[in-house]
Amino acid sequence: MLRVPVGGVAAHRADLLAVEEPLEIRVDGEPLTVTMRTPGDDIDLAVGFLFTEGLLGGLDEVREIRMCDENVAAVTARPGHALRYQHADAAGSARKFLMTSACGVCGKDSIEAVRVRSAFDVGADPVRVSAAVLAALPDRLAGAQRVFSRTGGLHAAGLFTPEGTLLVLREDVGRHNAVDKVAGWALRSGLLPLAGHILLVSGRASFELAQKAIMIGVPVLAAVSAPSSLAALLADEAGLTLVGFLRGTAMNVYAGADRVTP
Amino acid sequence: MLRVPVGGVAAHRADLLAVEEPLEIRVDGEPLTVTMRTPGDDIDLAVGFLFTEGLLGGLDEVREIRMCDENVAAVTARPGHALRYQHADAAGSARKFLMTSACGVCGKDSIEAVRVRSAFDVGADPVRVSAAVLAALPDRLAGAQRVFSRTGGLHAAGLFTPEGTLLVLREDVGRHNAVDKVAGWALRSGLLPLAGHILLVSGRASFELAQKAIMIGVPVLAAVSAPSSLAALLADEAGLTLVGFLRGTAMNVYAGADRVTP
Repeated sequence: MLRVPVGGVAAHRADLLAVEEPLEIRVDGEPLTVTMRTPGDDIDLAVGFLFTEGLLGGLDEVREIRMCDENVAAVTARPGHALRYQHADAAGSARKFLMTSACGVCGKDSIEAVRVRSAFDVGADPVRVSAAVLAALPDRLAGAQRVFSRTGGLHAAGLFTPEGTLLVLREDVGRHNAVDKVAGWALRSGLLPLAGHILLVSGRASFELAQKAIMIGVPVLAAVSAPSSLAALLADEAGLTLVGFLRGTAMNVYAGADRVTP
Repeated sequence: MLRVPVGGVAAHRADLLAVEEPLEIRVDGEPLTVTMRTPGDDIDLAVGFLFTEGLLGGLDEVREIRMCDENVAAVTARPGHALRYQHADAAGSARKFLMTSACGVCGKDSIEAVRVRSAFDVGADPVRVSAAVLAALPDRLAGAQRVFSRTGGLHAAGLFTPEGTLLVLREDVGRHNAVDKVAGWALRSGLLPLAGHILLVSGRASFELAQKAIMIGVPVLAAVSAPSSLAALLADEAGLTLVGFLRGTAMNVYAGADRVTP
């Protein structure tokens, strides 16, 4: 890497970049998807992806999961479990598409069209979390990242108890991958649903992240930056507490504010 | 939205969130993909996506593109043009998968497995750009965003001349969508290849963004934050100038440094 100051002398420097490599997830020998991810915890990532996408209902549906090479996670399903998108198009394509008979979707219709149904009802979770505990989480996540990270450029997802204790931290070039690694870890640790827990993500909260939180039964999703409109709509509909702009000593609560105590 | 200060009194506030909605891209009546995007410039997004994914070689392959509703872009191909992923799996799935006979891929093999071939050779582009011009771009992009934006939480992609004049700015909840909107705009404006131009993105530079830059013939990709390892490898291999951490009066150049003049 060449460090170039305006009007100064450029100098070569060593630099550690966040590693990005493709991971192919195969089910019963056939490719399902490729995600660009940071290697590490790949079995968790594969299992977490399948679970938060609604393709896998539990570990009892899987006979074997193994890395068949550095960048290929091979999942073998037990008989009777397809682990594939059920809404195939005319060509048999295994992707998710807008599930709507009408041509267009918007607002609440959009959510219906793209959401996956969770086995857990986060809206019924009675947990309460104090604003002071929430406000302390980003520093804890960043502190844990300093311990584990050797590169810049990585997103993080951290799972906390209602008292603010960090249970697990995962990093990735993709925020959705970091959350799927947490999801896979929790599933394989027998911790689902994650009732009473808090999931904190660096950066922004998209619809996709809100959906993943609901799929693993986390009642509180907090983000350091802004949520999207559809993330807030989904959180409101599902009873997920959605906290954004969690910085310093204040935060914005976009849904489920009754869980946040002064 | 409820603004909650630790130890203080919570207050309701109005808040404009970045709009996120699903866009389905249909080709000849069949769904190809769904992307979560910020509405606006959707025809550009659909065309840009198809082009940077290597599915569309030019506008002459298209008979019609129209929004068939708010969140569905319908593309009708001219006879003889499929506009679909050619590497179908056994089920006929229209996704990209790792194209490798071996089971695993890494480093340069990863690039071969996931890259799309460009019609343009950015490595042959003789343009030179001064470090001072590059250093001025983030403020110009942010200034243009202040004019257009009414919400936080949006990524931006800006296309600049080698002298630093902003030609087009696009924003989206997804950085790849912002770049595809720029790509579609350039294609429909008859500007491809974008020889001699600079593409600036807010945030990080992933493999996917480097690939999109190469597909539209942009010789310089600059990012405000860090690139990934695979973005730097691809840039080096393709002759793309990759600038990261473009902040203040200095920058890191990860590939194609000969184009950056003091």
